[in-house]
Amino acid sequence: MKIALAQLNYRIGDFETDTAQIIETINKAKKQGNELIIFAELAIGGYPAKDLLRNPAYLNACEKALHEIASACCDISCIIGAPIRNNHSEGKHLFNAALVIEQGEIKHTVKKTYLPDYDVFDEYRYFEPNRDVHCVTIGDTKIALTICEDLWDNGVDNTYMGDIIQDLAVEKPDLIVNIAASPFSYTHHQTRLDIMRRAVLRMHAPLIYLNQLGAHADIIFDGRSFVLDNNGDVVTVLSAFDADFAELSLEKGKFQLEEHREVYLPGSEMAQIHAALVFGIKEYFTKSGFSKAVLGLSGGLDSAIVAALACEALGAENVLAILLPSKYSSDHSLKDALDLVANTGCNHQIVPIHSMVEAYEEALSDLFSGLTPDLTEENIQARIRATVLMAASNKFGHILLNTSNKSEASVGYGTLYGDMAGALSVIGDVYKSQAYQLAEYINRHHEIIPTNTIVKPPSAELRPDQKDTDSLPDYELLDSVLYQLIEQEKSAQDIIQLGFEEQLVTRVQHMLNRAEFKRFQAPPILRISPKAFGAGRAMPLVAKYPG
Amino acid sequence: MKIALAQLNYRIGDFETDTAQIIETINKAKKQGNELIIFAELAIGGYPAKDLLRNPAYLNACEKALHEIASACCDISCIIGAPIRNNHSEGKHLFNAALVIEQGEIKHTVKKTYLPDYDVFDEYRYFEPNRDVHCVTIGDTKIALTICEDLWDNGVDNTYMGDIIQDLAVEKPDLIVNIAASPFSYTHHQTRLDIMRRAVLRMHAPLIYLNQLGAHADIIFDGRSFVLDNNGDVVTVLSAFDADFAELSLEKGKFQLEEHREVYLPGSEMAQIHAALVFGIKEYFTKSGFSKAVLGLSGGLDSAIVAALACEALGAENVLAILLPSKYSSDHSLKDALDLVANTGCNHQIVPIHSMVEAYEEALSDLFSGLTPDLTEENIQARIRATVLMAASNKFGHILLNTSNKSEASVGYGTLYGDMAGALSVIGDVYKSQAYQLAEYINRHHEIIPTNTIVKPPSAELRPDQKDTDSLPDYELLDSVLYQLIEQEKSAQDIIQLGFEEQLVTRVQHMLNRAEFKRFQAPPILRISPKAFGAGRAMPLVAKYPG
Repeated sequence: MKIALAQLNYRIGDFETDTAQIIETINKAKKQGNELIIFAELAIGGYPAKDLLRNPAYLNACEKALHEIASACCDISCIIGAPIRNNHSEGKHLFNAALVIEQGEIKHTVKKTYLPDYDVFDEYRYFEPNRDVHCVTIGDTKIALTICEDLWDNGVDNTYMGDIIQDLAVEKPDLIVNIAASPFSYTHHQTRLDIMRRAVLRMHAPLIYLNQLGAHADIIFDGRSFVLDNNGDVVTVLSAFDADFAELSLEKGKFQLEEHREVYLPGSEMAQIHAALVFGIKEYFTKSGFSKAVLGLSGGLDSAIVAALACEALGAENVLAILLPSKYSSDHSLKDALDLVANTGCNHQIVPIHSMVEAYEEALSDLFSGLTPDLTEENIQARIRATVLMAASNKFGHILLNTSNKSEASVGYGTLYGDMAGALSVIGDVYKSQAYQLAEYINRHHEIIPTNTIVKPPSAELRPDQKDTDSLPDYELLDSVLYQLIEQEKSAQDIIQLGFEEQLVTRVQHMLNRAEFKRFQAPPILRISPKAFGAGRAMPLVAKYPG
Repeated sequence: MKIALAQLNYRIGDFETDTAQIIETINKAKKQGNELIIFAELAIGGYPAKDLLRNPAYLNACEKALHEIASACCDISCIIGAPIRNNHSEGKHLFNAALVIEQGEIKHTVKKTYLPDYDVFDEYRYFEPNRDVHCVTIGDTKIALTICEDLWDNGVDNTYMGDIIQDLAVEKPDLIVNIAASPFSYTHHQTRLDIMRRAVLRMHAPLIYLNQLGAHADIIFDGRSFVLDNNGDVVTVLSAFDADFAELSLEKGKFQLEEHREVYLPGSEMAQIHAALVFGIKEYFTKSGFSKAVLGLSGGLDSAIVAALACEALGAENVLAILLPSKYSSDHSLKDALDLVANTGCNHQIVPIHSMVEAYEEALSDLFSGLTPDLTEENIQARIRATVLMAASNKFGHILLNTSNKSEASVGYGTLYGDMAGALSVIGDVYKSQAYQLAEYINRHHEIIPTNTIVKPPSAELRPDQKDTDSLPDYELLDSVLYQLIEQEKSAQDIIQLGFEEQLVTRVQHMLNRAEFKRFQAPPILRISPKAFGAGRAMPLVAKYPG
């Protein structure tokens, strides 16, 4: 059987464009002699469509698209994901389905059995699970057709009842197909390979894994669909962060690629993060219909990284960096920022904030009479900068990129409506200690982030001679505790038992919990870790957190 | 059997306080000769604890609290809700359970069968459903012990598989107990009565409904636990928005109240909304450990309402209203605002914003050279006001209350980091047309909201002679379309078919969709309707929305 793999970039709800590209790809595959073409989970409608899945107009459009796509499937079979209405008298209103289309007709509707409902996933909100697991047959090939989580057996914890892989294995499939919507994190490609390899070895069949591609504000689908032979070895991996199309044939349980393809080697963690962030920025702009970005450039590390990433994603000519010096800005800050501008070639403007600071001081002098300066005055500076940046955003139609990192977001070291402003947080899932590595990666060929920006001690420069370490632990130490609290979901007690100082851990946990109300109003964050702030980490706002 | 109903106000994760008040209430009930005491769903740990339910320290604290509470249950039986670890090798890690405690031991663990996963609910994220439905026996009373959604059979749609009520009915229970965590909306008390009445009539048994009480930022539990006799008539209803304790005896299927209680009559829709908002404010401050509020007072309707509600919730002496006039503020605005201050007795300050406006104009003159004023300059004013208000918040430790209404939030008629700022949105679930009714209700005894504030045409006063109707449809019409799009989840086509003008509906839907990115960064909103913005309405940010 000749099989085409179609890894396409979908926009949620954009039926006209996506139906056209799906049909075009079907026609191409057919023309080239393929008997089967495979698309991703929820290729029809997009993922995650969230509460659009409750919208009758959206669901009708899904049905219309499916009908049009089915009509294109003559002389080629197609496996494609779509939301399908549940016509039974019981259960939720939809199934998350993999449809097998042949000769213009839906021949099989395979429903997703294991519906993920953790981290960024909320599929049980919309879908009824399947309860009847069987292989399907296309031509004379018996296929274990599954949807993402269905095969997500790590051999350790059993979040779901039953054992789909066992149920399918007894039917002795010739081929496993898993259509997926598996979001990127810097660990996830390897995890997917490991998990799918388990399925191959348990079912004794080769496997095609076809993933979603595209970023949707916070969630980034990296593609990287892949093919495993029946001993679990990688036959090929499709592009990361890009559309791709591959053809292969399956004869007697062996895959043969139509043409030689380089097997994709995942780059370093930092190479992956870098690629994901550039893709995430590009996608946000493309899919929201904007082309130009504005950001505040301080001379510090975070804004320099975001500027460099934005220039790479959008073109330097589409990036406006605004320098907003105050009387506390160090001598080097302006120079460092201008060096970054020169290195990237982006546009820049300098808008000193002194006059606004003075106007607020004067206006608030009665109200604050007799009170000593404190964080209030620091926050005013941050909010003045946000107001100037948003003014540029409003006036020019540029999107404001947020430049906060994950360490700051974790401990609340940021000003709401100030440096926390922006339509998209680019590095809000990157710890400060990772940011240094990211800067080195960005500079791998030649200097883009100025050296002085990297080597100088981090400072918010909101009061004289301020350093981040005045109020925060050293970032390496801080990030190490945060990683265990957030990504590894350990309790403070667990971390203390590993030898971390009790006072430090308790303080970091307290800061993390106290900043929940700030993060509630933060922009969407490009997700690159296994546990990002946002939809994947839902916390109560006015609780008493356990120690 | 003598039964005590304990409707207590819990704080999520506050084990020390809540365990103490639970044990105190058990002792009181025991002393007064009760044989059974009933607490709400997840009385132990609080609701919604969200991802704290993944935190081992939190779960250990739940177990410790349960142990202490069980030890107090000698010579009295107790029904109480708690998260219980799933010790089976399959399934999610927790059950949402109703525990029956007798003589210090857990005698029965009844697990929730129907786990809601819609609107604000996400229980499937944490809990494994029960699959084995039976009554439990306490003394010689056979009880259909259920948890909230388990009985949520409206006779129309069947979201869940199976029929718990039927399964329990065949066991012929003497009593139905439903422990619940059912959040307030202005329609919900009646819905609960209707739904529970169906259970009574289908199971031929009287019913005790014991609800959560307390607000947690957005979600408000109103209490209003109730008792129905076996023909569905109301025996008693416990307090709305307040802790309560009731005692009654059940003999031969008939309830007898220990002492006469006024049966609670739900007030008008507006009376309920008013009570919920005052309670929601009070709770936010109590549970986050603050006592004082600050807000911007414009002279318009929305901020006047929020000021009046805050004064009622916190005491006028704890409310600081800041008047922030600009050159576009009308002659009456300052007077109307000062009238409100006089009527409520709250504190006030006047901070004119002219000087800041001028400082920004000057600082941006190069960047904006040759460009005509537009929304940018209006937004700058809104952000100056937010910066002043947040400065007061920071300096004095007051919480900033947001004053935007639901109509504005729907169509994006608000400035991010400007009038959308605040720790809590008080009337973000109240349409502008409802705000007028709410003002009338607040004025029911005497004038608090100045008449001129109510009768003058709404205006943001960000440019000369501006009226809301310059850029928005008339609020009655706008709200009518919004209600159908949001609360009723109708498609635009459905609304047009009802006779609404196509251009209007399309425009309103477009504005609603386009403002998704703004609402993503909005404060938590006190939820008073069946469909509020926030956790209950998850929408993609960069999708193409269907027409």
